[in-house]
Amino acid sequence: MKIVAKRLPLYTGGPDIVVMGKEHAAELDLHPMDRVHVTNPNNQSKSLTAYLHFWHEANPVLGVFANTFDKLEIEDGETVSIFPAPKPSSIAHIINKMNRMQLSEKQIFEIIRDIVDNKLTDLEIASFITSIYMGGTTLDEATYLSKAIAKTGDTLSFDADIIADKHCSGSVPGNRTTPIVVPVIAALGITIPKSSSRSITSPAGTADVMEVFCQVSFDKDEIKKIVSKTNGCIIWGGGLRIAPADSKLISVRKPLKADPEGLLMSSILSKKYAMGATHVILDIPLGLETRYKNIGEARLLERETIMIANRLGMKAKVVITDGDEPIGSGIGPVLEAIDVLKVLRNDDDAPSDLRKKALLVGGKLLELIGLEKFDFEGNGADLMSSVLSSGKAYEKFKQIIEAQKGDPEVTVEQLRKRLSEHTFDIEADSFGMIYDIQNPVVAKVARMAGAPQNSGCGIYFHYKFQDAVSAGDVLATVYCGNPDKLRRTKRTLESNKMIFIK
Amino acid sequence: MKIVAKRLPLYTGGPDIVVMGKEHAAELDLHPMDRVHVTNPNNQSKSLTAYLHFWHEANPVLGVFANTFDKLEIEDGETVSIFPAPKPSSIAHIINKMNRMQLSEKQIFEIIRDIVDNKLTDLEIASFITSIYMGGTTLDEATYLSKAIAKTGDTLSFDADIIADKHCSGSVPGNRTTPIVVPVIAALGITIPKSSSRSITSPAGTADVMEVFCQVSFDKDEIKKIVSKTNGCIIWGGGLRIAPADSKLISVRKPLKADPEGLLMSSILSKKYAMGATHVILDIPLGLETRYKNIGEARLLERETIMIANRLGMKAKVVITDGDEPIGSGIGPVLEAIDVLKVLRNDDDAPSDLRKKALLVGGKLLELIGLEKFDFEGNGADLMSSVLSSGKAYEKFKQIIEAQKGDPEVTVEQLRKRLSEHTFDIEADSFGMIYDIQNPVVAKVARMAGAPQNSGCGIYFHYKFQDAVSAGDVLATVYCGNPDKLRRTKRTLESNKMIFIK
Repeated sequence: MKIVAKRLPLYTGGPDIVVMGKEHAAELDLHPMDRVHVTNPNNQSKSLTAYLHFWHEANPVLGVFANTFDKLEIEDGETVSIFPAPKPSSIAHIINKMNRMQLSEKQIFEIIRDIVDNKLTDLEIASFITSIYMGGTTLDEATYLSKAIAKTGDTLSFDADIIADKHCSGSVPGNRTTPIVVPVIAALGITIPKSSSRSITSPAGTADVMEVFCQVSFDKDEIKKIVSKTNGCIIWGGGLRIAPADSKLISVRKPLKADPEGLLMSSILSKKYAMGATHVILDIPLGLETRYKNIGEARLLERETIMIANRLGMKAKVVITDGDEPIGSGIGPVLEAIDVLKVLRNDDDAPSDLRKKALLVGGKLLELIGLEKFDFEGNGADLMSSVLSSGKAYEKFKQIIEAQKGDPEVTVEQLRKRLSEHTFDIEADSFGMIYDIQNPVVAKVARMAGAPQNSGCGIYFHYKFQDAVSAGDVLATVYCGNPDKLRRTKRTLESNKMIFIK
Repeated sequence: MKIVAKRLPLYTGGPDIVVMGKEHAAELDLHPMDRVHVTNPNNQSKSLTAYLHFWHEANPVLGVFANTFDKLEIEDGETVSIFPAPKPSSIAHIINKMNRMQLSEKQIFEIIRDIVDNKLTDLEIASFITSIYMGGTTLDEATYLSKAIAKTGDTLSFDADIIADKHCSGSVPGNRTTPIVVPVIAALGITIPKSSSRSITSPAGTADVMEVFCQVSFDKDEIKKIVSKTNGCIIWGGGLRIAPADSKLISVRKPLKADPEGLLMSSILSKKYAMGATHVILDIPLGLETRYKNIGEARLLERETIMIANRLGMKAKVVITDGDEPIGSGIGPVLEAIDVLKVLRNDDDAPSDLRKKALLVGGKLLELIGLEKFDFEGNGADLMSSVLSSGKAYEKFKQIIEAQKGDPEVTVEQLRKRLSEHTFDIEADSFGMIYDIQNPVVAKVARMAGAPQNSGCGIYFHYKFQDAVSAGDVLATVYCGNPDKLRRTKRTLESNKMIFIK
């Protein structure tokens, strides 16, 4: 059916929606919430599958939600084609998986492609995820999933035999090793194009911290230029179309809290595969509040990740780390950027735990690549340490900042000026030793204060795990976005204890 | 947050939706597609959970979809309260089921209640259904499901020790036994308040056929009055709020084609439970195109249904019938009503297969109730036959029609006048015997002709299964809504053969 399209000032942030009169819908035997295929007749490639809503009163035009309108690339008042969307064949594959059949590479690719093309609804994707959760995935299926998630998005390739990459399974505030590891590896002549994420539920993602120094959104060509100049980059993956299926799968997994192992590994490895990685280190923090809580789970993940990575043509290594306490002194984009800069500059007051963690993770990555390449005696962490101490890593970091259009000469003092002025202190209520800093409370407080939207907000810890303190000592300073947030953050701390002393 | 609500001329037919400005949403830390709780401040009981869309441009009001607006019972321009919807606790139960734990009665009730209250999204419901599909249900769980589906809707009770009911698993066009069985049972002094469905994908549901004779939408009190007068009724279940969870579960099951046995049985039994039934007969047609294709499946369903029914305090019996050919001569509301009237009136040209099927199903129901009650020698079918032949069933049918505000004296001739005038005939192309009438094609052709929306449309079979025919004999007449539908129906028959002769 041909019908005049009209842009509606509404958007969903996700699903595409068009609105039709009952009379027109009846002609096509369509019902509310049915899926329809909408095409821009001047550009057949601009077609999409949308959900149908109805006009409550008779209306001859097709209302098109703004997000959908923009994707169609049509003009207001233009005529579009609309017809009932055919049932995607991938639904049959999902039903197969519900019936515990093993899926082929082609079937998995079709499911993921239909997810990316908006042809499957949330409920169908939820069934797919539940079927994987309950039925499990074979190593083959997990490998196919990784490939499909990568190949239905952008992929990059670099002119190098070795492409290094790293990943952290998260949940540890302040764990900002990437901006330290990348310059060291790049300074050693290894290509390391690192795409990072922004925060979703944490006080800062690596992309948020890097954005304190420079730009992080670049297209494929720009990234290639940056990497050809400096060997490395630290960019926001969301600026590319890397593994677009993954964010859709995450949005469905989140409300269910269902993270099937097979999908989780595919989610990680697909992004590395899309970046052309050959050597990948995975940092898995273990703790009471992290995703992995015991060594058995982590070891199982390790074994399976390595096997799937190998099937994808990558060498992988897992390093299991302590995830019970925050890392570094600052939590929040600017405060974490200050920590990173201090470590790279070998400042006296650089947080030693952050440096140590970076040496560990980066060192294991160097060992995976093979230390014999670097003509160095000692282990990977020693090599990391020597490059850091020599100042070569800081030089490389400045090159990367410059290539990413930031100011390479930025100082800690300049960064400090970007901190919020609305602060309050948390004092020790007794004498003793800090025996626990609660990561979930740290994240909650820093976010309530304003991080990461307001980059100058967060928490600075003057004392850390196992430090001895006296009553009245200032344990931490909280930087808040405004007086209202300050009040609310204080109130939150009254019912949520963050730092425990005994 | 208090916000002025404005009615939007849009509706979804299902999910509730409100539209908010980005600025307001940011204050509540809300994102597009988040769930929000909206309350009418003048009537706290009128609150609901809706999905959030965003205004594309700054807009201070809360846009409310028409379907949502009406549920809230607010005025245009009225101020409502809105806040982020708390995560329903039933999600944890769904995750338990995904982890293969057995659910308690309380947990299942909470899941079903949250489905009815629109607190669970399609994706969460899909996960629940998939987890039941893959993990199965124990008899206890299936019993709890049935109870929960019944109790989260309206329930009826009648002043009688025995409440009879029947159900058919469907897919056989023309299988209109209810308007024959109900008057016989009622004439024997047994209470049989029958709620039936309208067609979804078939050419006619029992409620559609009954509507040819009288009204079918009544509220609880009206039904009680009808039944106290006549012992029976044949009404549309959708006019009540019987098992409202069921239609939501069906709308999610449909795209997945996932009908877990546990849910299917609960779906059937919950409605009988809600009607207060004590004795239930289930007609399960077996055929190549029906839901159940082999006797093993049907026997398993039979055993489990009886056990669950017993746990619900009901006696149940299953009768497995032939589902390969249509039943009766007419397909479509008016044509089926004519068949029913002929059987009840003992007309010479009454379709014998429909009469026989009604005797079988009704007879088994009488045997389940106990023939000793009726002081009759012979089996249940014989008793059915004698009541039919005596004219008492027709008398009872007329009483029911009158109680349901129809014309009890309506004749076959009067009904015939309500048939559409746009007809065409299907002729035999060879001499031989009819060895198959394809049910799916029958349903498709009758619907394409206009049934059930246009009650006078459908198919009349002049010859039936195993009849001998000569080339040129008129096998069937198709009644179409208009010349356009006639053309399209003819074209469909060119590529879909309905009647096979050999």
